[in-house]
Amino acid sequence: MFAGGSAALNALQYGATEGAAELRDVLGERLGVSGGEVVVTTGSQQGIDLVSRCLLEAGDVVVVESPTYLGSLQAFRAQGARVEAIEGDRWGLDIGRLADALSAGLRPRLVSVVSEFANPSGATLSPERRRALVDLARRYRFVILDDNPYGELRWSGTSPVGLEEIAATSADDGRNDCVVSLGSASKILAPGLRVGWLRAPEEIRRSVVTLKQATDLQTSSLDQRLVAELLGDADWMDAHLATARETYQRRCSVLLDAVLGGFGDAVDVDQPDGGMFLWVRFNRSKIDTMELFRRSIELGVAFVPGEAFGSRSGRSQAMRLCFGTLKSEELRTAVRRLVRAAEPIL
Amino acid sequence: MFAGGSAALNALQYGATEGAAELRDVLGERLGVSGGEVVVTTGSQQGIDLVSRCLLEAGDVVVVESPTYLGSLQAFRAQGARVEAIEGDRWGLDIGRLADALSAGLRPRLVSVVSEFANPSGATLSPERRRALVDLARRYRFVILDDNPYGELRWSGTSPVGLEEIAATSADDGRNDCVVSLGSASKILAPGLRVGWLRAPEEIRRSVVTLKQATDLQTSSLDQRLVAELLGDADWMDAHLATARETYQRRCSVLLDAVLGGFGDAVDVDQPDGGMFLWVRFNRSKIDTMELFRRSIELGVAFVPGEAFGSRSGRSQAMRLCFGTLKSEELRTAVRRLVRAAEPIL
Repeated sequence: MFAGGSAALNALQYGATEGAAELRDVLGERLGVSGGEVVVTTGSQQGIDLVSRCLLEAGDVVVVESPTYLGSLQAFRAQGARVEAIEGDRWGLDIGRLADALSAGLRPRLVSVVSEFANPSGATLSPERRRALVDLARRYRFVILDDNPYGELRWSGTSPVGLEEIAATSADDGRNDCVVSLGSASKILAPGLRVGWLRAPEEIRRSVVTLKQATDLQTSSLDQRLVAELLGDADWMDAHLATARETYQRRCSVLLDAVLGGFGDAVDVDQPDGGMFLWVRFNRSKIDTMELFRRSIELGVAFVPGEAFGSRSGRSQAMRLCFGTLKSEELRTAVRRLVRAAEPIL
Repeated sequence: MFAGGSAALNALQYGATEGAAELRDVLGERLGVSGGEVVVTTGSQQGIDLVSRCLLEAGDVVVVESPTYLGSLQAFRAQGARVEAIEGDRWGLDIGRLADALSAGLRPRLVSVVSEFANPSGATLSPERRRALVDLARRYRFVILDDNPYGELRWSGTSPVGLEEIAATSADDGRNDCVVSLGSASKILAPGLRVGWLRAPEEIRRSVVTLKQATDLQTSSLDQRLVAELLGDADWMDAHLATARETYQRRCSVLLDAVLGGFGDAVDVDQPDGGMFLWVRFNRSKIDTMELFRRSIELGVAFVPGEAFGSRSGRSQAMRLCFGTLKSEELRTAVRRLVRAAEPIL
């Protein structure tokens, strides 16, 4: 019944819907904005869902890059949105095709991208495409949803300027007017801690917080406190991310070598500069990766068949391999078994 | 990439959307059902939101007890539902009035109750009303949403048979066909751990899990593990709940004495058998508890004015006092200040 009281974050008590001040400040510092501009979400999946609910009515069009992350498709469809998949390549969503579709009358409310090391394709949206996408967003009045959980797992090259920054620096008043950015602790700390974050133009941010209150009141106080302590220790984070990048780079290289050694030129696969995924496409045979999946599961090896990421033609000959969790020797063993499973149907 | 692996719950890794098996089994044991019938939610607020999204279309009618918990109103309104408030008394939602409204043509999709020690009224739905409500649910084909986060905080009397059990035992096939039950760790362990649970007829349960995946993938693995360990230790829980009940009973008694001592017969207030709230109504004066709130905040004392729980007439002369967190002496001090704040306007 007393108002006020200790300002210390209590990891077991109720806290503010927009997130614990301690964590928002740490996030703001990492992102180069004020903590007040950051909203904490229960994983970035909740960010996708809240933005969908705030912006989409049934029948609204959402453009996604194909192939795309299944979780975002589920959130868009839960709102009754009509999802239009536009092909991407290793430079991300094909903005030329998007421009054509817009010229032809497509009017999306939202265009969703995973801008760096996308799930499943591993693609990173190029600087030119980023600028073009922001221009199109203004011209056709859609919002860009930029989900970027993998960007900090880069071991080679440098990250392109973010979509939000492009939007801000190219706006007359210097304020981002069309990009919602999502981040996540899942891929850099731990996915079992459900902590993500969101930045957005103020009006959208306010709607998101109001809706979040009805959705889960707040994100776990304990998870927020743990993430704040880890992200707030810059030296520890630098060392931790350096180790993660080095480990992923090594595993990626081992997996890529094993895949190319085992399947040779029967597959196309790009060498990633970061992230957690290899996107492997069988290029000649009529192999169905759903069938390969059933066979390889019997040998104790799992992957995600291309069909899970959208149903466009060609997808059924692709598969997503993750190098995030297994050690080098395990990855080699897994690929040997995968090759064995594939042999009868190659 | 390997399938299977350790079955141990990993508190930092991804887990199943419906909840960690370890926690579901513990909950099933406490609830007398199989763990497979329990879905873990990110607090019971998420349970309310998921059920709303699965069952309600824009324009659908939801009946709530008045006064009612603001968080459920927010979730229903986020779905575009039309909320019809029906007065309750100290025995909960007035089922006679509900029956009249149904006879007159009201067709709710959902009837929402906080069945035990309701927030804010402290009311517990009586056994007769429970049976009548289940009968009406079958006759008029609505779903009952039974939110019960306070039921285990009972220090006097015994809990009425649950709505779900009434529905199951009165059904031809012995299966609950019309009640969704929500529980929560917030009031018996810690609200900062966002862990609630849901039971429902199978079809609803399946829709809820599918939607939850799009909403936040899963509830925090760490929070689930902590709650599983605590709830799973029956001896510790018994002792913990005994202490909590004893503490709340003592505080309730102190607060009630202080309120009656300070305001005398200017207020009506019922003596609760459990929970965390006193619902205090000024009965003679035209006191506005919003104004009282502004005055008492200046003296460092907060409460929730009646208007926050729905806008029906009479609400503006009521207030919710919580005895959950303050010690006896603090409660007495708070009420002294509250009386001082009220004096000029009584």
